[in-house]
Amino acid sequence: GKLSTADETIEYIRARLAYLGTSRPTAVNLFDAIGKLNSVVVDRRRQQGDAGSAEDIINTYVDAAEGMLELDIADNRAIGEHGAKYLSQRNAAADEDKMCVLTHCNTGSLATAGYGTALGIVRSLFARGKLAHAYFTETRPYNQGSRLTAFELKADGIPSTLVCDSAASFLMNMQKIGAVVVGADRVATNGDTANKIGTYQLALAVRAHGVDFIVAAPTTSIDLGIASGNEIPVEQRDGREITHVSGILVGDDRVDNKRQAVQVAVDGIETWNPSFDVTPAEYITAIVTERGVVENKDFDKIKDILQG
Amino acid sequence: GKLSTADETIEYIRARLAYLGTSRPTAVNLFDAIGKLNSVVVDRRRQQGDAGSAEDIINTYVDAAEGMLELDIADNRAIGEHGAKYLSQRNAAADEDKMCVLTHCNTGSLATAGYGTALGIVRSLFARGKLAHAYFTETRPYNQGSRLTAFELKADGIPSTLVCDSAASFLMNMQKIGAVVVGADRVATNGDTANKIGTYQLALAVRAHGVDFIVAAPTTSIDLGIASGNEIPVEQRDGREITHVSGILVGDDRVDNKRQAVQVAVDGIETWNPSFDVTPAEYITAIVTERGVVENKDFDKIKDILQG
Repeated sequence: GKLSTADETIEYIRARLAYLGTSRPTAVNLFDAIGKLNSVVVDRRRQQGDAGSAEDIINTYVDAAEGMLELDIADNRAIGEHGAKYLSQRNAAADEDKMCVLTHCNTGSLATAGYGTALGIVRSLFARGKLAHAYFTETRPYNQGSRLTAFELKADGIPSTLVCDSAASFLMNMQKIGAVVVGADRVATNGDTANKIGTYQLALAVRAHGVDFIVAAPTTSIDLGIASGNEIPVEQRDGREITHVSGILVGDDRVDNKRQAVQVAVDGIETWNPSFDVTPAEYITAIVTERGVVENKDFDKIKDILQG
Repeated sequence: GKLSTADETIEYIRARLAYLGTSRPTAVNLFDAIGKLNSVVVDRRRQQGDAGSAEDIINTYVDAAEGMLELDIADNRAIGEHGAKYLSQRNAAADEDKMCVLTHCNTGSLATAGYGTALGIVRSLFARGKLAHAYFTETRPYNQGSRLTAFELKADGIPSTLVCDSAASFLMNMQKIGAVVVGADRVATNGDTANKIGTYQLALAVRAHGVDFIVAAPTTSIDLGIASGNEIPVEQRDGREITHVSGILVGDDRVDNKRQAVQVAVDGIETWNPSFDVTPAEYITAIVTERGVVENKDFDKIKDILQG
């Protein structure tokens, strides 16, 4: 139905925001954004004495959301620049010109407001002429790599190659990789980072191969409310994500752009499908935020940096 | 057409064996079996003075193949018993009764002549009442885990859970795993082991978590002709294995037992699809053969053990 009063409008929007909040227990910048949008009406009331009409409320929310969008894109570009500069310097120090990077999941313009976090660093490296090649994992079970990251890298003309998650370590044996760059759903005060399942495995591979491990995270993803990764809840998702796969049917029955599900696994088996894992701070070379780069040796100062 | 002479029959069978030999550059016991079958006629000629009729040739080959089948199953059962006994002893020494194991790919009766190698160890642990739970990876890109291992574990009533390849390390953080047990396509003289892509990544995870890493390999998989894993050729396969997935269509269009392919990834992207990787001997706790268990400290004696 139509929203006719300010109270109805506020109630409706808050309920939708609360619903969005149930989608991701692990991510923290989602809660941050919801909190900001919830305070929009409070701020307006404080400034103007009342909340105004239903239309005023809607306009206030739209203005606030568009402002957040612009800031988010600017933050992503800053993360990209800081990260690319940091990696280029490390690469130059190692007497290398261009570097190969590996990324996981999708952290590009399809996952963020635009440009991207980890993928923003890849884009900035490419723009600076410092990227030799980008490898990206398919990112099981939901294939964000083969569906989304593949699309963005191809659209931008960035030389890139898809690999299975399980092939990442062997890739590091066969090809010099300068850095693994990943995003973050939540960073604890000590630097422990929750991110898409498979991130921890990449961190172990990086440790064995002497590769840099870079976490790209806007400061809104850093949660000073928790001391370490032990306090980060990890979302468990439906096993159907593993047992079934969606794609476009091949052959005569193909319908363009219509995705269909096929069942890959045997019926009636148990699954374990954590959506995220937690990578201990010790494995992370640096965290790149929109305000700059924090190296591992400075992780004990994350709180000061954020509050300073 | 019909094979009417001994020479025609020999030529036909040898050509088919040679064709089988082109299927797997990495596996060595396949070449061993082909060699044994190729010598069958030579042996018969030596013993009986001639190769006999076309029908004699065919019977000779069938007898030889059935003999190899029986030996292979007996070898697998011996691997299972040796491995289960070894792991049970280590578990008892750690004051544990039952243990959880993780396995990769399919090494069961659908991949071997019967019973299985690594899966044979899982079966033997279960039969001894020493298995708490078997975790198994889906094994991208060809999903041997979710299709085949799932089927075998379910059929045998073994308590088991499917996980994504990328979740294996995180699983070791969340659940005590006693051992990772895998098969082998080829073991070099120093113990380096080529096996399904993703095995190396599991070995790195095992190292970080203090878990046993067990390679189950019949002695025919040990190649004394090569000193180390550097000499093992790694098969590169079609990228379509990654970009497309086959399964049974879900919904009204479902046709039981008819697998259909869907395209998951974006069109026209580059892929890197090595079918195998090589795990350095240093990561392997023990290799279990049908003749017994060789622990890491004895890997320099593999040659003596095989030739002794």
